[in-house]
Amino acid sequence: MRNGLTLWFTGLSGAGKTTLNRAVYERLAQRGLPVESLDGDEVRRYLGRGLGFSKEDRDENIRRIGYVAGLLTKHGVLVLVSAISPYEAVRDEVRESIGEFAEVYVNAPVEVCEQRDVKGLYRKARNGELRGFAGIDDPYEAPQHPEVECRTDLETVEESVEKIIQYLELRLAC
Amino acid sequence: MRNGLTLWFTGLSGAGKTTLNRAVYERLAQRGLPVESLDGDEVRRYLGRGLGFSKEDRDENIRRIGYVAGLLTKHGVLVLVSAISPYEAVRDEVRESIGEFAEVYVNAPVEVCEQRDVKGLYRKARNGELRGFAGIDDPYEAPQHPEVECRTDLETVEESVEKIIQYLELRLAC
Repeated sequence: MRNGLTLWFTGLSGAGKTTLNRAVYERLAQRGLPVESLDGDEVRRYLGRGLGFSKEDRDENIRRIGYVAGLLTKHGVLVLVSAISPYEAVRDEVRESIGEFAEVYVNAPVEVCEQRDVKGLYRKARNGELRGFAGIDDPYEAPQHPEVECRTDLETVEESVEKIIQYLELRLAC
Repeated sequence: MRNGLTLWFTGLSGAGKTTLNRAVYERLAQRGLPVESLDGDEVRRYLGRGLGFSKEDRDENIRRIGYVAGLLTKHGVLVLVSAISPYEAVRDEVRESIGEFAEVYVNAPVEVCEQRDVKGLYRKARNGELRGFAGIDDPYEAPQHPEVECRTDLETVEESVEKIIQYLELRLAC
């Protein structure tokens, strides 16, 4: 069996999870490595019909992503998951169940994320159109010991990607 | 990329899907091939919280299994799915979305399945404790053109498994 691994990108909306995920995907695919990208919002479309945005439903969505990521990891795929995944307990649960797992903390201050507001969600959260938005009216529990931390307000995308690739090279000896 | 394929075992409860699935799994694993078994009931535990047994919810469960099977297939895994999956339309939908897909019709007359009644479900369906049970008070739409058909009332397990393995050898040239 090949070396599978789930790389879990966690962070606030707008912190840069998707950008880093895509860039890392490209780098790994160029090397011919088996890689899959799972985006939290996208997986929710396939597996989350009927799930809302309560803590319980968000946790359930994370568990489902974790289940899929775990199966792929078991079969040697490098799985890049992007999901806000604001709660530490369920992230740790997924880490435990997958085994070959590493957390990438995509970290930028909430003020920076709000200023970027790529999807216009912070505006909606401030207007009260969106409730339970991590960093605004819902907690975001930062990882205590992430395997990689990218400060996307201080580093360029290239610098962040390089950090992640170097971590993978060490871990997978590739 | 290696040759992935989803082998979809469809048939009435008690027809022998799980038995054949396990036996085929063993044969493929012995050859060192990357193989994964997904059982409809088990996947429902991971991905189906909140889903009931209406036609709509059953179809949704099948779609979710199909999504997971599709990702694994894409990465070269031989995926063995067991699910009653009584409705042709959603089986065809899954076939279409996965691409590398073959249907194994695990076929035994409902009277034989009811006599076996491994899980005691036919009794419950007859008592009215279970509703919408395929073959009793709900339809089972038999595959029109399954890639493999196993008549488990007429063949031994070994004969059925051999049929499936021969199909795989031809298709995958392995």
